[in-house]
Amino acid sequence: MSNRIITVSREFGSGGRTIGRMAALKLGIPCYDQELIDKVAAESGLVREFVAEHSEDIRGGWFGYAGARDFYGRSINDTLYAAQTKVIRELAEKESCVIIGRCSDYILREDDNVLMVFIHASMEKRAERIVRQYGERDGDPYQRLKDKDRKRRAYYQLYTDRKWGAMENYQLALDSGSLGLEKCAEIIASLY
Amino acid sequence: MSNRIITVSREFGSGGRTIGRMAALKLGIPCYDQELIDKVAAESGLVREFVAEHSEDIRGGWFGYAGARDFYGRSINDTLYAAQTKVIRELAEKESCVIIGRCSDYILREDDNVLMVFIHASMEKRAERIVRQYGERDGDPYQRLKDKDRKRRAYYQLYTDRKWGAMENYQLALDSGSLGLEKCAEIIASLY
Repeated sequence: MSNRIITVSREFGSGGRTIGRMAALKLGIPCYDQELIDKVAAESGLVREFVAEHSEDIRGGWFGYAGARDFYGRSINDTLYAAQTKVIRELAEKESCVIIGRCSDYILREDDNVLMVFIHASMEKRAERIVRQYGERDGDPYQRLKDKDRKRRAYYQLYTDRKWGAMENYQLALDSGSLGLEKCAEIIASLY
Repeated sequence: MSNRIITVSREFGSGGRTIGRMAALKLGIPCYDQELIDKVAAESGLVREFVAEHSEDIRGGWFGYAGARDFYGRSINDTLYAAQTKVIRELAEKESCVIIGRCSDYILREDDNVLMVFIHASMEKRAERIVRQYGERDGDPYQRLKDKDRKRRAYYQLYTDRKWGAMENYQLALDSGSLGLEKCAEIIASLY
């Protein structure tokens, strides 16, 4: 593979998605995030809304329709993960790009020319950010962060058998709350 | 505190010490590593050799003379840690500098203007490096790495009650085996 890929894994509310976009813009390469949803929906045959909601989150697996199994015994979550893996692999083969989350670090772990980045921030900074970005909602922002962290961690561990956010899986880990989004994007672009 | 401090915590064999020196050189500020030993020996009244061997390692605490307690019930390791804390705080108040390891990240955690860095690398890269740097010795280099990791982790956890190498304690974590020492030093200097 001669393309160069950057994967950006991130804690909810850390601004990792924005940092990924900023780095992609600096480098003049595409950034795949929400754009993955349509591709994965097309690949899997699953409805877009389900893909959007469960592409990093196994909650649906434990009850309701997502608990159903197909002919091969796969849950809908497994089907989603398989489609996501295929789409991410195809993108990495097609062009240089930034890919946000969705276990892309794990899916591309064997490839050369992949820069794996993790973005994190303190609970305080993340809580501030989600209230600013997504507005006040019912419930404590700290509780929302904890719920989201828990779901992403569970999803990641289920499909990768690795610990989510373990330093050794990333060439670069940045505290966006302390360094700022722009500086994080600069460092990532400088390593490309 | 108007000084700016960089703490560099690192896995054994990751080249973190060298990266810290390189960054300090780029910035024209001192780097404290072995230099701490004389200061801590003077502060604590402990012999230099003991300080050199146990400033990041609790092994000595479990047997032999290091198990002895002073009048206040402190072990020699506790005396060493207390002296180290005092020396690191004084340095941080005196001048801008790079400080290598010795729980400096934890000791200075409340201060502003501290950039906390962690350097890691794969076991393969670290094994290569220790054989190249320190020569072949009795025993498997992987075993030497594991022993050293275990001791540093235990020391850090004993005195800080934090998990050693947990991403959230560092603004910047770098895989030196993948990025190279020079690039790591550049990133650190650019964040100063």
